[in-house]
Amino acid sequence: MARQLTEGGLIGMFGATGDLAKRKLFPALFALYAQGLMGGRFAIVGFARRPLTVEQFRTHVADSIREFGRKAIISDEKINSFIQHISYCSLDSEQLESYLEHKATLESMEKKFQCEGNRLFYLALAPHLFGTVCGNLRESGWLNIDGWKRVIIEKPFGYDRETAVEMNAAVQTVFEEDEVYRIDHYLGKEMVQQIPYLRFANPMFEPFWNRDYVSNVQLTFAETVGVEERGEYYEKSGAMRDMGQNHMLQVLSVVGMERPTGLTANAVRDQKVKVLRSLRINKNVDTVSREVVRGQYSSGESRGHKMPAYRTEKNVDPQSSTESFFAARVFVDTPRWKDVPFFIRTGKRMPRKVTEIVLELKKLPEVWRTAARDEAIPGVAGPLLLRIQIQPEEKISMGIYMRDALQVGAFRESQMVWKAEYPANRELDEAYERLFWDALNGDSMYFARWDEVESAWNWVDPIEKTWQSLGSNGLEFYPAGSWGPSAADALIALDGFEWWTN
Amino acid sequence: MARQLTEGGLIGMFGATGDLAKRKLFPALFALYAQGLMGGRFAIVGFARRPLTVEQFRTHVADSIREFGRKAIISDEKINSFIQHISYCSLDSEQLESYLEHKATLESMEKKFQCEGNRLFYLALAPHLFGTVCGNLRESGWLNIDGWKRVIIEKPFGYDRETAVEMNAAVQTVFEEDEVYRIDHYLGKEMVQQIPYLRFANPMFEPFWNRDYVSNVQLTFAETVGVEERGEYYEKSGAMRDMGQNHMLQVLSVVGMERPTGLTANAVRDQKVKVLRSLRINKNVDTVSREVVRGQYSSGESRGHKMPAYRTEKNVDPQSSTESFFAARVFVDTPRWKDVPFFIRTGKRMPRKVTEIVLELKKLPEVWRTAARDEAIPGVAGPLLLRIQIQPEEKISMGIYMRDALQVGAFRESQMVWKAEYPANRELDEAYERLFWDALNGDSMYFARWDEVESAWNWVDPIEKTWQSLGSNGLEFYPAGSWGPSAADALIALDGFEWWTN
Repeated sequence: MARQLTEGGLIGMFGATGDLAKRKLFPALFALYAQGLMGGRFAIVGFARRPLTVEQFRTHVADSIREFGRKAIISDEKINSFIQHISYCSLDSEQLESYLEHKATLESMEKKFQCEGNRLFYLALAPHLFGTVCGNLRESGWLNIDGWKRVIIEKPFGYDRETAVEMNAAVQTVFEEDEVYRIDHYLGKEMVQQIPYLRFANPMFEPFWNRDYVSNVQLTFAETVGVEERGEYYEKSGAMRDMGQNHMLQVLSVVGMERPTGLTANAVRDQKVKVLRSLRINKNVDTVSREVVRGQYSSGESRGHKMPAYRTEKNVDPQSSTESFFAARVFVDTPRWKDVPFFIRTGKRMPRKVTEIVLELKKLPEVWRTAARDEAIPGVAGPLLLRIQIQPEEKISMGIYMRDALQVGAFRESQMVWKAEYPANRELDEAYERLFWDALNGDSMYFARWDEVESAWNWVDPIEKTWQSLGSNGLEFYPAGSWGPSAADALIALDGFEWWTN
Repeated sequence: MARQLTEGGLIGMFGATGDLAKRKLFPALFALYAQGLMGGRFAIVGFARRPLTVEQFRTHVADSIREFGRKAIISDEKINSFIQHISYCSLDSEQLESYLEHKATLESMEKKFQCEGNRLFYLALAPHLFGTVCGNLRESGWLNIDGWKRVIIEKPFGYDRETAVEMNAAVQTVFEEDEVYRIDHYLGKEMVQQIPYLRFANPMFEPFWNRDYVSNVQLTFAETVGVEERGEYYEKSGAMRDMGQNHMLQVLSVVGMERPTGLTANAVRDQKVKVLRSLRINKNVDTVSREVVRGQYSSGESRGHKMPAYRTEKNVDPQSSTESFFAARVFVDTPRWKDVPFFIRTGKRMPRKVTEIVLELKKLPEVWRTAARDEAIPGVAGPLLLRIQIQPEEKISMGIYMRDALQVGAFRESQMVWKAEYPANRELDEAYERLFWDALNGDSMYFARWDEVESAWNWVDPIEKTWQSLGSNGLEFYPAGSWGPSAADALIALDGFEWWTN
């Protein structure tokens, strides 16, 4: 069962003193190391503007791990040996000279740790820098190496389709598609990764995973937080760009895809992109207004705490029409899903933090139900649901009707349950750990491919353009701490359904 | 949720001082009463030869309840009020005069408790008496009543097809088929009763419940006890008549049946009998010898205790060829199950007491398995199983392959689980309670219909006749405390399978 990197490699971390690196990236790399997965043949070099000595940077990394790492696997000894693999370069990522200056540092580190000429660059940077950095990586000769080269980039992948295409073109003049690892950390979550296995490695799920049995599919990605410190970013993004274009459509494509020829990166993504290409586009104001609800939180209350309105948050325009919530009815025009609505919904300042996928099954023929149901019994009247909960718990529950042992001839709704289990001390349960691990191993199954990103923009773009043209017209307000505007309930009620996550 | 008998009724209990009445029947009736289900409009009259006063009999019943009843629901107060509903007649069940003599007792009891002229007779008697008793019931006028009449009888329903037909004819000169409740207490077990609900009230089980997905079905009904005090009965019966002809084929028919038009008594039994009629008959010595293994326990050991051989047990012929174990490969020649073997197995002196149904699913296409499997990992190589455990636990576990979070690209076998739940203090979990309740309510869904019994004999008869002709030839011995003779493993191995219950 021993598992370790089979190849050495150097990890070049841009934005090494930033927030993401501190909270997620170094703790994730350390977790892989502390569990013995990294082995010894790796080096990490941090790049940022700040003038720091290597020792100062190592201390910074050690502090990050202690503050944000998984407590169970942290020890001073492990941290100390981990940071020996780390160096630092004060680098201006926009200046080619800066790269040339530090070339030797990379080479000495990878020689010292037998990295075999493999280099993985993590661009924890503002996306507008991706093109420049990639160009500098090439021009500087940092990519003239014996081994493989890979680059990890993070959303947002563009502001709209056009800017996404531009950015991608800049990256792809330097890196081939199969060298680009576009992180979507929802694809790193355990339950999302389980979906293809659940569906395709088992005989009992596929038979009902289609329009014959499923009446509708629901995705709810609810956050309790407001916009917090991110007003400046969020004002330009909104819920659709922040959650919809990437995380939600990615998860939707995993739920909706056809059987891949195997569980390999391109086989799975070939199927996912077919779903994204089959999304029914809302071409004009009428269809956008009918199919998509846009919401923004007003002031409200949650568990006794007063919450401010979005428009009064820091760095937010007091007249802002940015959506902090959206709900959409999405159709996937494939033979499997034709006319089965996918209701997707995300928002800030919702009553609880939950990410859940619900497949609602069609009701049984009435001949069964009326004969066996005492309408006075509560709780047995609903349709059966397959719930895949991504967070806070990692579990699947499949509603089944069983015999009510206490009521002759009556049904009782019951659940078959699966919960994620991990052997003690062998957890690997942070999305960034998995994704780092996959990237180091060259497995891009759970990373977004360019054609997926582009197809998602094709669905998002006309909605964003319509909203832009409407300004605040049609923006629905909801009290902070609620499940969004009533228009979202009306949207799903039009087809006779209701939201099951609440 | 209140539920109670909607009609009054008198219960006439033959064999009222016998072992079954003491251990099962009175505790079951009391349990229904103690839970408030019986209401007040019922009377129970015990019949047996022994000359007892009503008070003596009531004390006997009270003692039975205290000894064998479910402790949680017993109280002196409830027992005292329950036995007020009880009377007793010292009756020679073979003498018509005896019935005539006690006619008035029945009438006064049912008047006192407003039984509305409904009478249910429980014949806890040797089966050869059924005909005589039914005749006397009719001749005595005990059945000249305003309400319904019903009779409950227990196995064995005949010694072979011929005697079964005779016995049934005698009963049916007096009772119509829908008035006869043939108890098979396995049909009263919670998990057996759940199977039709599981299969037909839910969309996810039927799609794989057939030859396309199921490679074989296994039924294991294992007892740890030996023949105990029942040598005289068992010598004439053996495992096939004691367990196979009734319990095992009944459960097999529930597992194998087609969708009924509703969950009603005749709709379900119409489908069950189709399965029993479709059993492939083993017509001669060759096929019987190939398809059925007959075993008898020799001396052995279990958990440090020495166990005697069957042939040395009390009231057993030292040269006995009676089987205490059998295993058979059964084919159900319906479109659903064509060529899918049902392996059924029962025995005494097995390592543990367990009753379980296993549906073994066909392996996934190798393209999935080899790509994702590290053959060195134990426990992930098996086919997926749907296990319905009837006892000791009441649960369903469905094997599923999920992603191994710790092993890139590997599967991990996992389980979705359902367990029977009962609201506190509202249990109804003894087979005899359920079956009494159903009979009092006129619901015969979980009782064997005559055509089912007859069809089961059609499968059993040629096997029994062959064994009789062979004597001890082909009888396989197995050590007490083992899973039966190796021939049973060889039987299932011929098709490349193995027993999963162990």
